[in-house]
Amino acid sequence: MPRTSTGESVLARAVRILESFGSAGGTLTVSEVARRSGLHVATASRLVEELVSHGLLERDEQRQVRVGVRLWELGWRASPTLGLREAAMPFMEDLHAVVGHHAQLGVLEGEEVLFVERLAAPGAVPNHTRVAGRLPLHASSSGLVLLAHAGTDLQDRIFEGPFQVFTEHTLDSASGLRAVLAGVRREGFALCAGHINAEATGIAVPLLDARGSVVAALSVIVPNDATARAKIPALQAAARGIARSLRRPPDGSSLIG
Amino acid sequence: MPRTSTGESVLARAVRILESFGSAGGTLTVSEVARRSGLHVATASRLVEELVSHGLLERDEQRQVRVGVRLWELGWRASPTLGLREAAMPFMEDLHAVVGHHAQLGVLEGEEVLFVERLAAPGAVPNHTRVAGRLPLHASSSGLVLLAHAGTDLQDRIFEGPFQVFTEHTLDSASGLRAVLAGVRREGFALCAGHINAEATGIAVPLLDARGSVVAALSVIVPNDATARAKIPALQAAARGIARSLRRPPDGSSLIG
Repeated sequence: MPRTSTGESVLARAVRILESFGSAGGTLTVSEVARRSGLHVATASRLVEELVSHGLLERDEQRQVRVGVRLWELGWRASPTLGLREAAMPFMEDLHAVVGHHAQLGVLEGEEVLFVERLAAPGAVPNHTRVAGRLPLHASSSGLVLLAHAGTDLQDRIFEGPFQVFTEHTLDSASGLRAVLAGVRREGFALCAGHINAEATGIAVPLLDARGSVVAALSVIVPNDATARAKIPALQAAARGIARSLRRPPDGSSLIG
Repeated sequence: MPRTSTGESVLARAVRILESFGSAGGTLTVSEVARRSGLHVATASRLVEELVSHGLLERDEQRQVRVGVRLWELGWRASPTLGLREAAMPFMEDLHAVVGHHAQLGVLEGEEVLFVERLAAPGAVPNHTRVAGRLPLHASSSGLVLLAHAGTDLQDRIFEGPFQVFTEHTLDSASGLRAVLAGVRREGFALCAGHINAEATGIAVPLLDARGSVVAALSVIVPNDATARAKIPALQAAARGIARSLRRPPDGSSLIG
């Protein structure tokens, strides 16, 4: 592997450039890319040029740079996640139609929840930026479900904190979090009323694969009021349907159009 | 840019490795990666190792390699496509609920249609493999819409052929294609009855951005029978709704859960 004088490989630098585009998407100048990735402008400029030549980055009319559709296409092949998303989608559509508001699908990625799908409320202005967004495990209903069924190593790291606080209801201690995780395992769902936003309640349930392992969390975000708990049965029913789909092999249907 | 003795850069080789995972996803052994990418096993092995270290590839329990969730996450930031997809999704859900079967969103990528979203028929077994799939422009209703509004350079290249033939109804001549494209521009939609599969009709309409440029094709796949044409108004109405969304800036709503 050719390495630069600093010992960092070309590939590592290219990844830093790709990572400099935040989850909000958008375009950057080469100088911004250099600053965000901590590379010299000349180095960043050469690498951007080559990434553009492969279609992993694209230039717009103003010569600003953005993530390329080709990178999206290659990344889409991350089959475990996307198989999950395809299995979940019909049930998420039904759940979304019945419950309204937001339906989300999240997986454990590092020490956070990564949201791989999200259906926004009908009539809501779509939010471009937060599919592929992340949230801390202790703060979100999806995170609590994933953490409740995670290994003790991960749990111990999260118990150490720090606990990012969003509202006065955000869990912010190891003892509080331990008690809540036990409840999640016992009751089969996590309900977070106002933990991230005072006006919203997140409710999440686990998705099980064929071996009974928790592979994702299915969640809805609904108003923080007395009606929230009534959504739990619909959420649990959708999770069962998705789990059944995950146990079935895919058919051979093809893309026609 | 460090280059190997063959003159090919490390980055180019890494891209070839990522490309060796076909659109069907799935896992490969390092030997398969080497064979598909045309690299020596030792070279492929070193690069796979480094791609795994950055999370762009992942290893499963059998040490087979697959595309990593991190690559999906980085690729999701391809903002023009995904902004489009977010704007389209609520309207695609409605269209899908009303028309059933398949609703798809495709963009022009190179000389093909790249499908960036697809909702499968309720009750149909989800098809893992073909979101991010491609189809030739001459053969699909989405491709005809995109080609009808593309530059003459691209049209001339497609007119030269060859024309991949799927059924006896697939367009397979420049003159036939020219006549159909004129009809698409005049009537505002493309209807392909049995062009790819004898049992299916694809219908597509253009999606316009704020400047009136065609940025994508919205399509449905329905049975190839006398009811197909009745779906056109619903498709056109959905396309107008999406175009209106694209003209509105996104709101500040955040991911909460």
